[in-house]
Amino acid sequence: MSEANSVNSNEGLLIVSEDACKSVIDRPSAFIAVENVFASMSRGDAYNFPVIREAIGYADALYGFKSGFDRAGKSLGLKSGGYWPGNAAKGLTNHQSTIFLFNPDNGKLRALVGGNYLTAVRTAAASAVSIAHLARKDSKVLGMVGAGHQSTFQLRAALEQRSFEKVVAWNKNKDRLKNLQAVAEELGVPFEAVEREQLCSEADVIITITSAFEPLLMKEWIKPGTHIACMGTDTVGKQEVDVNLVASATVFTDEIAQSISLGEAQHAIKSGAIKESDITTLGDVINGDHPGRSSDDEITLFDGTGVGLQDLAVASAAAKLALEKGEAQHISL
Amino acid sequence: MSEANSVNSNEGLLIVSEDACKSVIDRPSAFIAVENVFASMSRGDAYNFPVIREAIGYADALYGFKSGFDRAGKSLGLKSGGYWPGNAAKGLTNHQSTIFLFNPDNGKLRALVGGNYLTAVRTAAASAVSIAHLARKDSKVLGMVGAGHQSTFQLRAALEQRSFEKVVAWNKNKDRLKNLQAVAEELGVPFEAVEREQLCSEADVIITITSAFEPLLMKEWIKPGTHIACMGTDTVGKQEVDVNLVASATVFTDEIAQSISLGEAQHAIKSGAIKESDITTLGDVINGDHPGRSSDDEITLFDGTGVGLQDLAVASAAAKLALEKGEAQHISL
Repeated sequence: MSEANSVNSNEGLLIVSEDACKSVIDRPSAFIAVENVFASMSRGDAYNFPVIREAIGYADALYGFKSGFDRAGKSLGLKSGGYWPGNAAKGLTNHQSTIFLFNPDNGKLRALVGGNYLTAVRTAAASAVSIAHLARKDSKVLGMVGAGHQSTFQLRAALEQRSFEKVVAWNKNKDRLKNLQAVAEELGVPFEAVEREQLCSEADVIITITSAFEPLLMKEWIKPGTHIACMGTDTVGKQEVDVNLVASATVFTDEIAQSISLGEAQHAIKSGAIKESDITTLGDVINGDHPGRSSDDEITLFDGTGVGLQDLAVASAAAKLALEKGEAQHISL
Repeated sequence: MSEANSVNSNEGLLIVSEDACKSVIDRPSAFIAVENVFASMSRGDAYNFPVIREAIGYADALYGFKSGFDRAGKSLGLKSGGYWPGNAAKGLTNHQSTIFLFNPDNGKLRALVGGNYLTAVRTAAASAVSIAHLARKDSKVLGMVGAGHQSTFQLRAALEQRSFEKVVAWNKNKDRLKNLQAVAEELGVPFEAVEREQLCSEADVIITITSAFEPLLMKEWIKPGTHIACMGTDTVGKQEVDVNLVASATVFTDEIAQSISLGEAQHAIKSGAIKESDITTLGDVINGDHPGRSSDDEITLFDGTGVGLQDLAVASAAAKLALEKGEAQHISL
């Protein structure tokens, strides 16, 4: 019986709160859920439905849905969510997400799962999976570009993938680097705030997690053998790294359709520097259909665009664990 | 304070079960909710987001989402639903729907509302609103084409709009007409099962609620002055009435984009018998921007395609009433 199956077989509606998600989903379980769903996608067992994203013309909000179905993991559903820029002033998170899971055998609503914490851990899990499969085994220095809300989740997950001995970090607003420094110190890893060119000259693995609209990292700064996970670009127009860097790297992604249209690869595709067929899904590497890194000198780049199936995968895991541990509420609808 | 506003102002998550919906939403409240949202749509205060509809390749299921935002009614959210053809054999409804409402001021999930009963009453309310605004005041005979699950909801709502003295009905499977007959007898209205041509020769108002893919009613059968509500066609390829009938009628709809692409008007548009500009929204009639019926001889046709905003409107009303009457469960997420 698959993980989600046991959740589906139970009757009634499960409510899995934000607190329950934090209690039951740790980094290893998010990593496994995301790795499995990337593999399902590449085998053709799972696919994402079209994304709905609307500026609703009220409260400056962006609102929409990411949805999909993983036949292998028996996960069917959607993440509804949005960005309400006025929330912070009211003491609420600007990003608001909820995940809904349906029983694929009969269409009934099966679980309602808080999506704010899970969105952060599934995004961090994606870059961690890319590091696990693509970064050099002897990577020693981790470079962090960006120090917003997501960055500490990224840092914690990345540090577990290799025996990193140092973290170098850059952010536009230097003050925010304190958040990353605190995590590195908590985990006993030396930390240094640096400029971007120095970051690239030291780092074996780099994670970019910004909302930039212009390249922050240039091709000529990057060492041979570096693995770069570009996690910030999820919208037409956003850009974190130089087109020439994308063109010189071996490019992997979660979903090719998103990578070429709204991911980091959009610019290299548009300029003709790379073709769609130059991009490989990370799932193909996980499944063994692509060898991944081919040499110690190769630059690998993971274009993490974020797909609905990642949300469904971690939410299914959260629902299963919360059910087992008695942390889910049961509701009849 | 608007209806939905009071729901939005309350903290926590409301669960409004199928039973609670049946208890708090009667036909008049569904009628008002649907009439108001049609008016909002035509004023430009409410709009539907793109519809997601997927054959998921599992359990022969069709699955998807209808979503939208009504700024005037403060309704933001979606109906997720689908069709699971194997459900009936398991004692479950084949159509499974759930409606999710979000607080438009901060994006938080506000209410989870059972959607099966509400889908039936909101569809019946749409044809009832069309009868209220477009049928001749002296209509005496109601014709029902189709006798499936939705038809009894349609019949009850329609009978309240005019002083009908008789119901004539046709269905492919004659056995199922017993369901309509039972409702007519319960309400003290004479009932007769007839052939389609006779139905058209007697009826002043006709509701078609079938899954037909070929015209069931021909232009030359229809009396001058008839109002026809075509409620069955919601998919490319479906068709309930003759293209010439659509061309000779004054055509109204809930949403023009759906009417011309997947509603009853799709065929008349494709053949060039009518143009998009020949179709008027029912909301324009409700708002007084279009006079509606212009003479006693005019044939009026309402192309009811079914939009997500109808679902959100009745669900908002259900959440408000269930909250007031203590029939909503309160959950913290």
